[in-house]
Formats: sequence, structure tokens, C-alpha cells
Amino acid sequence: MGILRLSHVDIKVPDLDLAAAYYTEVMGLDISERADDRIFFKCWDEEDHHSLAVRYDPRTGLDRFTFKVEHEDDLDDLEQKIETYGFGVQRVSQNEEIGQGESIRFDTPSGHEMELVFDVDKVGGRLAKTNPGAVPQGLKGIAPPRMDHLLINAEEVPEATKFYMDVLGFRLTEQLLDADGHQLGTWMERSHSPHDLAVVSGPNGALHHFAFWLDDWDHVRKAADILAYNSIMVDVGPTRHGITRGNTIYFFDPMGTRNEVFTGGYRPDPDFPTITWTEDNIGKAIFYYEGEVNTRFLEVHT
Amino acid sequence: MGILRLSHVDIKVPDLDLAAAYYTEVMGLDISERADDRIFFKCWDEEDHHSLAVRYDPRTGLDRFTFKVEHEDDLDDLEQKIETYGFGVQRVSQNEEIGQGESIRFDTPSGHEMELVFDVDKVGGRLAKTNPGAVPQGLKGIAPPRMDHLLINAEEVPEATKFYMDVLGFRLTEQLLDADGHQLGTWMERSHSPHDLAVVSGPNGALHHFAFWLDDWDHVRKAADILAYNSIMVDVGPTRHGITRGNTIYFFDPMGTRNEVFTGGYRPDPDFPTITWTEDNIGKAIFYYEGEVNTRFLEVHT
Amino acid sequence: MGILRLSHVDIKVPDLDLAAAYYTEVMGLDISERADDRIFFKCWDEEDHHSLAVRYDPRTGLDRFTFKVEHEDDLDDLEQKIETYGFGVQRVSQNEEIGQGESIRFDTPSGHEMELVFDVDKVGGRLAKTNPGAVPQGLKGIAPPRMDHLLINAEEVPEATKFYMDVLGFRLTEQLLDADGHQLGTWMERSHSPHDLAVVSGPNGALHHFAFWLDDWDHVRKAADILAYNSIMVDVGPTRHGITRGNTIYFFDPMGTRNEVFTGGYRPDPDFPTITWTEDNIGKAIFYYEGEVNTRFLEVHT
Amino acid sequence: MGILRLSHVDIKVPDLDLAAAYYTEVMGLDISERADDRIFFKCWDEEDHHSLAVRYDPRTGLDRFTFKVEHEDDLDDLEQKIETYGFGVQRVSQNEEIGQGESIRFDTPSGHEMELVFDVDKVGGRLAKTNPGAVPQGLKGIAPPRMDHLLINAEEVPEATKFYMDVLGFRLTEQLLDADGHQLGTWMERSHSPHDLAVVSGPNGALHHFAFWLDDWDHVRKAADILAYNSIMVDVGPTRHGITRGNTIYFFDPMGTRNEVFTGGYRPDPDFPTITWTEDNIGKAIFYYEGEVNTRFLEVHT
Repeated sequence: MGILRLSHVDIKVPDLDLAAAYYTEVMGLDISERADDRIFFKCWDEEDHHSLAVRYDPRTGLDRFTFKVEHEDDLDDLEQKIETYGFGVQRVSQNEEIGQGESIRFDTPSGHEMELVFDVDKVGGRLAKTNPGAVPQGLKGIAPPRMDHLLINAEEVPEATKFYMDVLGFRLTEQLLDADGHQLGTWMERSHSPHDLAVVSGPNGALHHFAFWLDDWDHVRKAADILAYNSIMVDVGPTRHGITRGNTIYFFDPMGTRNEVFTGGYRPDPDFPTITWTEDNIGKAIFYYEGEVNTRFLEVHT
Repeated sequence: MGILRLSHVDIKVPDLDLAAAYYTEVMGLDISERADDRIFFKCWDEEDHHSLAVRYDPRTGLDRFTFKVEHEDDLDDLEQKIETYGFGVQRVSQNEEIGQGESIRFDTPSGHEMELVFDVDKVGGRLAKTNPGAVPQGLKGIAPPRMDHLLINAEEVPEATKFYMDVLGFRLTEQLLDADGHQLGTWMERSHSPHDLAVVSGPNGALHHFAFWLDDWDHVRKAADILAYNSIMVDVGPTRHGITRGNTIYFFDPMGTRNEVFTGGYRPDPDFPTITWTEDNIGKAIFYYEGEVNTRFLEVHT
Repeated sequence: MGILRLSHVDIKVPDLDLAAAYYTEVMGLDISERADDRIFFKCWDEEDHHSLAVRYDPRTGLDRFTFKVEHEDDLDDLEQKIETYGFGVQRVSQNEEIGQGESIRFDTPSGHEMELVFDVDKVGGRLAKTNPGAVPQGLKGIAPPRMDHLLINAEEVPEATKFYMDVLGFRLTEQLLDADGHQLGTWMERSHSPHDLAVVSGPNGALHHFAFWLDDWDHVRKAADILAYNSIMVDVGPTRHGITRGNTIYFFDPMGTRNEVFTGGYRPDPDFPTITWTEDNIGKAIFYYEGEVNTRFLEVHT
Repeated sequence: MGILRLSHVDIKVPDLDLAAAYYTEVMGLDISERADDRIFFKCWDEEDHHSLAVRYDPRTGLDRFTFKVEHEDDLDDLEQKIETYGFGVQRVSQNEEIGQGESIRFDTPSGHEMELVFDVDKVGGRLAKTNPGAVPQGLKGIAPPRMDHLLINAEEVPEATKFYMDVLGFRLTEQLLDADGHQLGTWMERSHSPHDLAVVSGPNGALHHFAFWLDDWDHVRKAADILAYNSIMVDVGPTRHGITRGNTIYFFDPMGTRNEVFTGGYRPDPDFPTITWTEDNIGKAIFYYEGEVNTRFLEVHT
């Protein structure tokens, strides 16, 4: 049945201790495991081993991003499709990677290393499975319930989008077109949300941001209060996107990777008709309240 | 691939004009079509022809409920499964029913008439598909963006649940068990939401309520303000469910059918582990803040 | 210039440790001082020594309530007015009472001991006075920024109200009248809020509840989540009052004293015209969403 | 007893029809009266004749601002104090001005014409005085319940502040100081709110903005949605102030006058200790989330 959801994003950080401090105290994630040069984080309502992994490296950047598939044999199916499309696929055996079983890895036309996995270690969320409370107590920081999506850059957005849609089965919810009808940005989903993966024009292989889900506009304010208290550099927001209609804040972790908190938006099923934005509306498309996009948002990525 | 989402609920009302007034002015739905003895309503963010149909009848009650399938040949597949399970299936041809194409109808073990449909007339939502605004202006009343789920009664909850799961592919997100481990209530999904369909102990064929989605806890308050202004009888709320964690108000339309507005909850994928409630926690399970269930909620249905 | 605001409420509790645990962990107050048989609490945004004092006594109940006056000579002025009205006044010297200077105490026509004080120890709030953060971090529990008002009972509401208005200068914002135009309840203010003091029909000397201010409807939900998590008995809510228009939850501390959290309402100046409710609208007046008052709310007080 | 609250702001607009359209349809005010070249607006929860008056003039700008006093003889008292301070006072007789009785007008050290009035025509709000609903239905646009405050510029902030405090009795809640301890901005109140009047460094006689109160952070988002839908130019926000702690959006009416919507903040009594900000914290002081002030906010006024 194919891809289910974003599983985890693996990034490089120049300071593991700072990353641990920020992602637990400010972002409010839980550490599920530490290895030599890596730390694995999860959100409180996630069952799986991790949704964010950081690895020590002198430079920030994206190692890869991983999506989870619904069935075990989806890996074989998708491996074949990717190879038919002309890309090589690498098998990662069980026990090679922390927190998950066998997976496949491959380069995409947007120059990213992508991974698909079926078997993920279940470590459970913060609420019980029998007579749970409704809201966990004792959370720290922003404490999002789950990772939501990521946005990557590509030199050729249409080519990258075609791969994610035709080969991996992503569905196009929204697109931003230039005057010639060429895609400048595309928003795609597999989990009945406005986007699990988005691609915007920029250098191949780059990460623009990954985003955590918040339940409410009030939690967006609480996030802004926590960010300001901790002197975290805000890029934009609180504001609303025209695309996805979601409410949002963009900000940078202390090592320079852009984070987002995101809430709202609609609930698209596979029969959802694609929404199209034209470049003359790019301001409202990206930041609905401001009606314009700041240069930093367009040009900074890792 | 099977069932996609709740498509529409068809109920009987003793007063069509009152139903039209209430569901447009108070609930804030749009009328998509009127026929002799029927009115078809939709929410502002729904693309399909209708999510609620009312038919004149001296007594309130449920005619049937309809789910939409993802692919055209899902109808054949599911027809066969239902017949194999021992239930008769009736084909409704194109043009027999307003707002949709061919469908199948059948009785379920819980004594309800259920319908599955693939082809539904697309009439579009209130927002444009090119450079849309983020929030429609000029809405009236509560104005939910979409229908969310329905809850039905069954004398034998386990038997009914087994049918919905084994034959129709619903996934169990939560269950309420008596001291013997017998299911008193079950919550099931097909659309990555806490429930699209729920079954609780009660008379076969009865409707407990259908629910509209709201985006926010503040919209729950606005709904309560509108209900109070219009002297609509509130059953319970604003409150929170333990089951689904959602925030809610229950109330009765002026003809006596229970409505709900609902927001929040988690996002379950097919690999979501079922949550179990034991009967000694029924209070918090149903109404988390009150810790007890009122008699009216348990005993009144249509 | 007269009375400024509610200063503190002094109640009796049968268990000091339980009171300390509840009012710090669940309600989220700070302890400003402990004496032999007393504990003094304050809210995080209050500058004064305390807004709640509990004293050990085998039975719950109200010791007294204290309002703060604006100027030092207000004490003399009001003492004279009270005595002219026919009530005896007791002077409490500096150093006789913890956390405050000289005060006057007297019995009111509603059978309560009331106190007026000018000089209160300033202990400061949680935010700095130079370049403060906007929201304190590290709060526990509900954590209201301040005490808001109290509601007391009186056998003769009009007589009690006349005293609070004519002698102490309270202004009447709202009143509930029976069919004969007799006051069943009155809401009065001195601080440009919908009520600092309210009186409803009931036994002389009784306390119905005292209330803490919350900033937002979302904080009301958070309070409800915390109350439910701690299995605190909720009386009514979350709901809205017709009177004051405020959003509210009523609940009982573990020793049996009714608490409220309250937000919203209007901003009445001294030229605010009184709002009148008639007894046939008592349901909406008290609980706007439910449209009816539960027996417990009417009959239980301490 | 002195000044009670901000009564109304009188501004010049180059297009009366555009002003009428914007302030009713987008801002959601009611028109209480139209005269030849003037329009009088009020908010739905205000009792008085108007809180905003616009007058046709080819150039935008401030005519004057008016505060309401509590007692009739406050006018005489304050007239004498102003004259003693060395400023001339003009008496405006009853029937000279629309919507109000006798008043006094005078120039302030900040180069503004200020007015004080006791007798204002009462036209009533949108809610009844007997058994009212809690929330008016049928409002349009942002629909703030009331005007909240205004911010003016002054070349010499300390001198202007001294006048407002010493002569008119305003109380200083917050101040922004440069490295020499010189006031760059001051925030003052008379109505137990964080500010009724603020003064920041800038040209004498200029208006920076006036602000409308909103009840909630969610209403701030709704305001932003309405502004974006109507393509109103947003200056900054939604965000939070460090000063006052309030949540806010700044934007420009279509004629160029800056408006604000504002909510939150604390409740200062006359014994509230002044909060001081140092210039090195000006970013967080003004815009707590951004941590920096945009040039437009500092330099544009009318």
C-alpha cells in the first residue's frame, strides 16, 4: 500500500551537547537513545523509536530523510519501481541502523538521500494504552506531539516532484507556478494531511526545514513565548500560510537548522483536488498575513 | 484500497423547514440541493455534493449512513466480501440517488442500513482552487469545515465491530471493555483520525449522534455561544473525551437528533496500537472533565 | 479614594499538608510564608504577601475576607462610615497579623467578618521589574496570575448589598431579581472588573467560592486537563456565565472549599449601567451554555 | 477623582467613504452618527456615543484625543491644574460638539490638542441591559468590543510624561530608558489596564497609533485573517509586546493611519510598581518574539 508517513529526519550538528539541550529543553523532545556520535529524539505522542536523529559533524546539513511504509513487501515493490526509474537502491540490513530494521536507501532527483523502512522499534508514547490521561503532565518546552513534515530544495522542482509522485506515490495537494506554468514549489502528502513532503526551488540536496505538529493556535503562542524566553532566533511568525492554511512559526535551532511548528490546515483524501498558486501571489501563498516573503526565508537552508 | 471516509448521513426529520433553518442558520451548513421531501447539506470545506441528507418523515431516525471508497472496483470487492460474510447486498444504479452514482447498500449486524459509494458529484467548497483565501468570509452560525464521524448503537458491540473490521477494513483505535473483557464500545477509523465510526451498546439500528469537525478549542466556545444564543438544548459540554482526547459539545437539533462538534485528538496510522478502557473508568473515558456520564447521554438516541 | 481590590481570603482547612499540596501542585500557587497553623499563598503575578491564607481547623469554612484600600486614611474614613452605619469596628495593630500592617475588622450584615487593610508586605511577583520576560517559565499546575473575586451568601441579599454599596462604595454591575423585584444575587466591583464581590441568597456567613483569574479560554481548558488528571471534583464547567459573560470552571479543593477559575467578561467603569436578570432567566444567567443551574451549585457552600 | 478612560480619538481622513467602508466592514465598528464632514464610530460593547471620529481633510493626521473624567467637577479641578502648570485651556460649551456636553481643550507639552469631557451621550451597546446574551450575533469584520489606548509621539518624552502624570494624574506602568536614564518611551494608565496613553520619542503632535481591545489570542488570529482577506497592509504581527505583555497586530487603515488590535497584559492597580526597560533590550521590549523593531514601526506616524 506504500508510504505511510514521515518516519525520521537525520541531520548533522556541530555540537551534540547543545543539540541535546535545545531539542529537549526548548523543543521538549525525549531522548530515546544515545550512541557515540548520535542522539535520537522522539515526540511525546510518537510510538516509534525516533523522529529526529542528530549526528556530530563540523558542518550542519541533512544526512537523509526516512519515510515509513505500511507493509513489509512495500519495500520490495518500491525498490523495484525506483530501480526501474533508473536510480540505484542500497539495502540496509537489520541491526545496521539504530532503532529500526531493514531499509532501502537511494538518491532522489533532488539530490537527497532518502530512506524507506517498514520495521521500526516501538518504544511507546508518554500516555498509557489502558485508561490513559488525555494530556501528559510534566512536559518541558514546546513539546510537540509529533513530527509533521519536511521541506527540501531542488534545482528542478518538476523533475523532483514527478519522482516523488510517480515512483513513490505522493499526492500533490498544492503547487506554486511561475508565469510559464513551471513548478516553483510543490506540496505532497501520503497521510491525509496538507503535506508530508514539500519541494521548493533551491540547491539540490538542501534541507529548508522540518516541522513539528502543534494542536492549536494557542500552542503556537506558547511556542513563541518559549522561543523568546530562550532567545531563539525566529525567522518568521507567528503567522499563517496561504498554502496549507496552517499557522506557523519558523526559527533556527542554535546550530543553524531551521525548525517549524505547524498547526491547522485541511484534511485531504486521495480525491482532493490540487490547489494552484501563481507566482504573483507568492507573498500570500507563503505568508498569508505579511503578504510577502523575507529574503532569509528564501535563501537560507542547510 | 477500500473505504476512504464517511461520505454522508441520511436522517429523517418531522419538519423540513425547521431542519433547513437550523442546519443553515445555527449549524452553518450550505444547502446543495432540495428535492420534494429531501434537503441535502454540505460543509464549507467539503468538495462532495452533501454530507447530511434529511428526509421528511413524521418520526426522527436514521435512514442510512454512507462511506466513500477510494477506487471504483472497491465496490465489487466489498460487495463480494459482504456477501461471503452472509449479508445480502443491493445495487443502487446511477441516477437512482441524488448527488452520487452507483452504490451498494446492505444491512449490518448492528441493524443499520449502510451504503458504500465511489462516484460522488463534486460541487466544490467555498474556497477557490487558485490563489485561495485561507478562511472563508461571510459564514453563518457554527460553520464546521466538514463532517467528521458518526456513532451508532448495537445490541452486540463485538459482533458489529467484527463486521466493520473484518469485512469493511475498519481499524480499532479504542475500545471500552466490561469486567469480562466484553466490548461495550468500539472506535474505528479509515481516515487517519481517531474515529470515523463508533459503536456503543444500545438498541440495534439506532443513531447516537453524528459529529462535525471544528478546527480549534476556541471554535468550540464559539459553537457553544451560538447554541446558547439560539436556545439549543445542550446535552454535555464543552468538555473533553478521554477516548480520542477530543474536545466536544453534544446537543440536539430542534427535531431531536443529537449532534456533536468535535476537535483535537491524535493522528492514528494503521500501525496505531489500540487503546483500552475498562468499565470502572467509563466516566473519564467518555467525559474526561466530569468523570461521569449523564443518563441522557447513555439512553437517548434516534 | 476607598477600596482598591480584593486582598486575600482566609479559610479554614482540616489538613494543612493536603492544602499545601493542592494549592501548590494543582492550583500552582507559591507559598510566601508558613506559620504554626497557617500557610500563606500567592499567585505568580501578585506583588503582595498573599491572596489566600489557610488555617488549620477541623472544619472547613471562611475566617474572613480582606480588601485593600488605596490610601492610608481610607481606613479612618471607612471605619467612621461603618460605625455610623451601626457596626462595631475592631482595630488590628501592626505586627498582629502576618504579611500586613494595621487593619480594621468588622461584621457585615451578611454575617461575615470583613477586613480592610492599606499596608501589605510587598514580596514581588515572578517576573523581573527590569527587562522582564513576558511569561514566567517553570510554573506548575494551573498557575493563575492572580486572585480575582469571591462570592458569599446572605439571607437578605438586598440588605447586605446596600451595606457593601452605601458604606464601602462598591458599584453594582449586575443583579438577579425575583418576580417581586427582590434581589436574589448581586455582583459588585471596585477594580473595573465585572465583580470583586458577589452576594447570593443563602445562609449568612457562608462562602460560596473564591475565584482565580486566567488569561484565556485556552487556559481554562488547560485548567480542566489538570483538574481531571488530578481527579479533582468538578462542580460545573468549562462553561460561560451569562452574568459577567466570563468563562469558568467550578470545582472543590480536596477539603471541600469551592474554587473557581475565571476569565473574560467586560471592563466596567463607574459609569457602567447595571445589568438586570429576572429569575425566569436564572439558568442562562448563571450557566449560559447549560441554561440551568445544578442543585449542588445552589446548595453547597462552606 | 480625575480621568476615567480614553473616550475618543479624532482623526483626519482624505476619503470619508473609504473610511466608512473600512471602519465598518473590516474593523467592524458601528456608525453612531454622520455629520457633514465627519463620521462617528463606536465599538459594540461601548455605551458612549463614539470612540473614533473621522473628519474630512486632504491630509491624514490627528485632530485631538479625548479622555473622560469621573465627576462633573473634575473638569474645573483639572482646568485649574493645567492653567497653574502654564497651559491655556479652552472651554467648549454644550451643543458645540457632537455626541457630548461641555469639555475643556488644551495643548500639551507633546504638542497635541487634548480634550477632557464628563458628559457623553449614552447610546448603548449591542447587548441588552436585561437578560442579555453573552456574545452579540451578526457582527462584521474584526468587531472589537472597545477602544483601548493610544500612543503619541513627543520630542521630549520626559517632559510630556511629567505633564500627563503630575497634572492629569496618569500613573506610570512601564518606561524605556536610554543609557543615560532618559525616557525614550512611557506607558501610563488611569483605568487599571497596562496603558491608556503612551508616549514615545518622535515629532511633537504626531499620532503613532490607536488600539482596539480584543478578548483573546484567537481573536487576534481572526483579525489577521480578516486583514489578509481584505489586503490590509500589516505593519507587524501577530506578535507579543514585552512591554505590557500584550498580544498585538499593527496595521494601516487604507488612508494611512496605524491601527492596533491588542489583548492580554496585566491588571495594574495604583500601587503597581513601574517596570523599566533599558535601551539595549528595546527589541524584546517592543516586539518580544522578533527581538527587534522594524524601521517602519519607528518612523511612520501621522
